[in-house]
Amino acid sequence: MIYKTYQNLISWGKMSTSKIQFDNFESSYSNRMQSMRSSAVRDLFAAASRSDIISLSGGMPDISVLPLDQVAKAASDSIKEEGLQALQYGSTNGRVQTRQLVCDLVKDFFIKAKPEDVIITSGAQQALDLIGKVFINPGDTILVEAPTYLGALQAFSAYEPNIVSVEMDHSGLIIEELEATLEKLGRASKPKFLYTIPSFQNPTGVSLTVERRHKLVDVCAKYNVVIIEDNPYGRIHFNDEVLPTLKSLDNNVVYLGTVSKVFAPGLRCGCIIAPPGILAKINLAKQGGDLCGSAMCQVMVEHYFHDTDWRGTMKKIIPVYEERKNAILNALDKYFPPEASWTKPEGGLFIWVMLPSFINTDELLNVALDNGVTFAPGSGFYPGGHAKSSFRMAFCFEEPKNLDIAVKRLADVINERLDLYRAFVKAGVLKE
Amino acid sequence: MIYKTYQNLISWGKMSTSKIQFDNFESSYSNRMQSMRSSAVRDLFAAASRSDIISLSGGMPDISVLPLDQVAKAASDSIKEEGLQALQYGSTNGRVQTRQLVCDLVKDFFIKAKPEDVIITSGAQQALDLIGKVFINPGDTILVEAPTYLGALQAFSAYEPNIVSVEMDHSGLIIEELEATLEKLGRASKPKFLYTIPSFQNPTGVSLTVERRHKLVDVCAKYNVVIIEDNPYGRIHFNDEVLPTLKSLDNNVVYLGTVSKVFAPGLRCGCIIAPPGILAKINLAKQGGDLCGSAMCQVMVEHYFHDTDWRGTMKKIIPVYEERKNAILNALDKYFPPEASWTKPEGGLFIWVMLPSFINTDELLNVALDNGVTFAPGSGFYPGGHAKSSFRMAFCFEEPKNLDIAVKRLADVINERLDLYRAFVKAGVLKE
Repeated sequence: MIYKTYQNLISWGKMSTSKIQFDNFESSYSNRMQSMRSSAVRDLFAAASRSDIISLSGGMPDISVLPLDQVAKAASDSIKEEGLQALQYGSTNGRVQTRQLVCDLVKDFFIKAKPEDVIITSGAQQALDLIGKVFINPGDTILVEAPTYLGALQAFSAYEPNIVSVEMDHSGLIIEELEATLEKLGRASKPKFLYTIPSFQNPTGVSLTVERRHKLVDVCAKYNVVIIEDNPYGRIHFNDEVLPTLKSLDNNVVYLGTVSKVFAPGLRCGCIIAPPGILAKINLAKQGGDLCGSAMCQVMVEHYFHDTDWRGTMKKIIPVYEERKNAILNALDKYFPPEASWTKPEGGLFIWVMLPSFINTDELLNVALDNGVTFAPGSGFYPGGHAKSSFRMAFCFEEPKNLDIAVKRLADVINERLDLYRAFVKAGVLKE
Repeated sequence: MIYKTYQNLISWGKMSTSKIQFDNFESSYSNRMQSMRSSAVRDLFAAASRSDIISLSGGMPDISVLPLDQVAKAASDSIKEEGLQALQYGSTNGRVQTRQLVCDLVKDFFIKAKPEDVIITSGAQQALDLIGKVFINPGDTILVEAPTYLGALQAFSAYEPNIVSVEMDHSGLIIEELEATLEKLGRASKPKFLYTIPSFQNPTGVSLTVERRHKLVDVCAKYNVVIIEDNPYGRIHFNDEVLPTLKSLDNNVVYLGTVSKVFAPGLRCGCIIAPPGILAKINLAKQGGDLCGSAMCQVMVEHYFHDTDWRGTMKKIIPVYEERKNAILNALDKYFPPEASWTKPEGGLFIWVMLPSFINTDELLNVALDNGVTFAPGSGFYPGGHAKSSFRMAFCFEEPKNLDIAVKRLADVINERLDLYRAFVKAGVLKE
């Protein structure tokens, strides 16, 4: 089954939390600001402070399992042992010790890298921004999965690309669709890169099969398209199989990692592993972007991975996520109408739900919010904001009991809409 | 006296630390990468690891005076008391507690602000990048001081502006030059903004007089030009007079601050205070840029300013800087030739030295490096890289004894060059 996209533009303005006011400087802003849109998830995060609301919208990892005493010691040790480095400016590409740590960690993903192949970034999000800056001229074509991570769309859209989506199914990106798209685009609109999240994708939770991974790197090599592989969720797998990263299959791949889903998002510690030419450009762009990342955060990350049983901590949290995934799937089976379908992820943090095209999940969100539950509407995960009938649920942050309540609340809202839909179908106005 | 600029382009390539290699992706990079150049200072920072070299190039604050035990406690307390917030994603504009702290601190600069007027950034450098992103279309005119902070030129150049310099003298930006420039540019090339560092400027150490501050905001209001006021050095003053910030004179000013020169650059904690319309655009750009800054760093900053005698710590370090400034000025008087002139700052971290136009300080740097001393060549502080005969010395990081040695080493190199210059003058080939 293909996740169909519907060409309906939506009004992002209504999600904005900023008030309308007279702005003296309206004529001063750059053109690119018009192509940038606010994240509904971020806006919800800012807006939803009601304690009775159960949030399925943000992909915040549950960090309650972290050994806070040990993390506090890591923080304190960072200053006691290396305070004058941790508190000072550092090099733009990051501490060599942190870059070495990255090299050690990505061995689990079959990636061979040396510290000089790595740049530490302020979360993988900064990496996305730098990639946009380094590659995209206004109007350049780039490829993304349909749907894809909304933060990537936000980062890239600042550089005004022509974003072309390639369809996915339950085995990930459809390689034939990719080839057909590349053929259709031709040399004149050759994409600058393909952005992909092959493992436990955001927002669908789907993983690219091993066979398709091989085909993907072959096709991109044939058409000389840079692959940007984003792998934030690779360690959150509910079975023992670790799929080969694209980077491990082709060293020309630009690989993005982060500690956000393995340790702590609050340290904003991500990385880029890339070929030397690309890495030099990223470094140049990063100089102007922030001079350097936080050395303090980097030293803390080093201490955490060296001094604590972080693998043990992961072994505690992954079954928690799996239990929650099962709870939300059970609740979907129990409460959701037969017209709905959804993904059944083997890892990661998200489930993707598809409803009949009749339903607009941007509008649904307002009603759901009144009913005490939030989710991320599908439109945010498509360039142009179409696919209004799908939505993303994050199962990572809430207890199973709350997930059950949340899905029930959501089902009530959807069923109410569907009564109308069914009446239309019965009357022959809509096809089933 | 005006700091004259000389239109000579220099080869930035030679300062790059990256090796020349074949790059498969050379044709894939964006046009903007061609207008970005590497910072000689950053490259030196990466290259100069010889222990016998005395560095006058980087503006690293001396953080050895920091109470590391208390900072370690601040780090540990940040996790113990607010670990689940400090380690989690936060809002894009920063913690409300940190934004309130900023409001409390800028009262010292006569600025009245509320938390909703503030966005926390990853150092003031990220603020510069965001300002470039929000305001600049390729070809747009922006105004800077001549010379100006090289990191600002790096940040802005990513957005391909037409950067126009306005001359300075020992009282700061020359207002008549600003008006003449604005008249000359006219409506068609109206600048998007003026970037200025009115207090203890980087690289000159010069401060804008009170009279000129009032005139500056009047002129910019008249021509409807946004003022970007960067104030990293405002607290490092060697006398008791605190000059009014431009922001305190006109609330339309966009104000940039940072804890880098007051506490620690390694926490990358800066801020923007701006009118609501501009702030909403900055927030939108920042979502795509990094989602959010490090909550850990923000909590640590809160603890440092609330729990330690930070004003007492500043009172310890400022006399150290002043002693070093005096040491370097004495050494300049003692060793430097009569053809050289320099600024005599009342605060900040830098001195600006002007040599006869005959001397190219980019070339001089290579010889100086062999002689065991580094500085920041003047070309980096001008758009286009002209003004090759000036350079910046940072007096903040080295002991007085080392500063004396460094200036002596530099004087030796310069005097050698000047012998040739004097011979030319004597022979009537060059005017004195």
